[in-house]
Amino acid sequence: MAKPIVFGSIEGVDEGHVFTGRREMMTNSFHRNWAAGIDGNKNEGVSAIVLSGGYEDDEDLGDEIIYTGAGGNVGKKQVEDQLWENTQNAGLIKSMTEGLPIRVIRGYKHKSEFSPSGGYIYSGLYSVVDAWEEIGKSGFKICRFRLIYAGQNSSRKSGEEIELNYITKEKRRKETTVLRIIRDTKIARDIKKLYEYRCQVCDIVLEIKGTRYAEGAHIKPLGRPHNGEDNPNNLLCLCPNHHLLFDRGSFSISDSYNLIGNINGKLKIHEKHQLNKENLKYHREIHGQY
Amino acid sequence: MAKPIVFGSIEGVDEGHVFTGRREMMTNSFHRNWAAGIDGNKNEGVSAIVLSGGYEDDEDLGDEIIYTGAGGNVGKKQVEDQLWENTQNAGLIKSMTEGLPIRVIRGYKHKSEFSPSGGYIYSGLYSVVDAWEEIGKSGFKICRFRLIYAGQNSSRKSGEEIELNYITKEKRRKETTVLRIIRDTKIARDIKKLYEYRCQVCDIVLEIKGTRYAEGAHIKPLGRPHNGEDNPNNLLCLCPNHHLLFDRGSFSISDSYNLIGNINGKLKIHEKHQLNKENLKYHREIHGQY
Repeated sequence: MAKPIVFGSIEGVDEGHVFTGRREMMTNSFHRNWAAGIDGNKNEGVSAIVLSGGYEDDEDLGDEIIYTGAGGNVGKKQVEDQLWENTQNAGLIKSMTEGLPIRVIRGYKHKSEFSPSGGYIYSGLYSVVDAWEEIGKSGFKICRFRLIYAGQNSSRKSGEEIELNYITKEKRRKETTVLRIIRDTKIARDIKKLYEYRCQVCDIVLEIKGTRYAEGAHIKPLGRPHNGEDNPNNLLCLCPNHHLLFDRGSFSISDSYNLIGNINGKLKIHEKHQLNKENLKYHREIHGQY
Repeated sequence: MAKPIVFGSIEGVDEGHVFTGRREMMTNSFHRNWAAGIDGNKNEGVSAIVLSGGYEDDEDLGDEIIYTGAGGNVGKKQVEDQLWENTQNAGLIKSMTEGLPIRVIRGYKHKSEFSPSGGYIYSGLYSVVDAWEEIGKSGFKICRFRLIYAGQNSSRKSGEEIELNYITKEKRRKETTVLRIIRDTKIARDIKKLYEYRCQVCDIVLEIKGTRYAEGAHIKPLGRPHNGEDNPNNLLCLCPNHHLLFDRGSFSISDSYNLIGNINGKLKIHEKHQLNKENLKYHREIHGQY
């Protein structure tokens, strides 16, 4: 496929847009893969899926979809086990762990009250929030994913509302929930790739179903009141434990890359990666690490 | 204080409720601490705060509040540095890392367009989403917290909207955001306390500004489609790295508590903690770990 993968909204195609056929989705990278449901791969993640009635185990609740992964399917029947590793299913895992949004398109053959009578309708951006395996209707292992609506259309349910929907009022009084918005950017993904998803503090690599997981940590935080930049010189590749400890100021980093605070050692820096020392200084100051 | 701390909504007190004085908040644990702004402590977290104009550095934007921690304040002036450890500021950190909601009450003396002309108004539940230190107007170190609205009032902005508000439309196209809803429950907190916040897999303790951090991991997941129970026999105390790897099925646990999959070793189990083997089996099955 010559065209690059594109994540998120695409200029000129709003929610509810109807395509008369699948070729129309290919020119602007909306869905580049004419023959398959999934556009994406294990290295980059999945950018778009077409629901077209090919999988007997799919469940469509509108803002929430239980989706069956790729493989082992012939003539709408499962005839062998699906796999995680080295498949597009690993791409869906990548989208989940990196928070990449997926464009969902429903085709006229897809059995659901949300399907169009003809052509293909763009149903908006969704997030993968869960993945597991089970034995499907035909007795073979299938890879399963839960997708929830993640677009900006305020007349639809937000991800928060969808998730809280399953909690009764009584339970809500007992439970506390916290919302973490994990932002990921092209630049953060590039930094993670540079380090091959290895934590710059502890060297750990977290492997998940054939994919690798790490987090892009901004040294001077994005957003109010810090207003740090999304720039490689303001980013680190960290495991979740060290991302948390760094964001909360349990340790900081000296200008010569020594770890300071409640930790020993030195930050590993790739020869192609330069940090902005002003940002390191800012981090030390807001967490009192000198 | 004899009354126990209570987190979240309290029966009979809705958003917008006006108290004529602070004693009225004490009987139902709404805010137990007559003399101080903060109700809570470093071990349990903070359940409620009263904004009453005592801190010169507070900023009130309504659904978002930049709040100054406790200490070093005499007659509305900072006269010495504030501290993190062994203070109520550590309690606010605890509320942040555990996702505990905080009842925010605005008093008539608090300088803000959202303050009542008399008495005290209950402004709803807020989450602490950031903490840092800086030098305040009087030249002393102050502990700072960003709180955002986290209640269920649909006529107010959701946490998601507040956070995304700071991102321009153009940036939204480039950034991807993922919403993680972290649920915490009384039972999960009890399990974490039992293990003193030590990861049952790797033994690590994560220390953050005088508090400890761990996550309660449900073995059979809560919510659709798994519908696991919030019960001690379905919970583990894990660090974020092992919570992620466990939730994503990179490893599972045998009936004799051996770790299986992409990891070696044995789960540490406290003598007072029993796991439901059916839940362990469910986890192995949905992640193909045998």
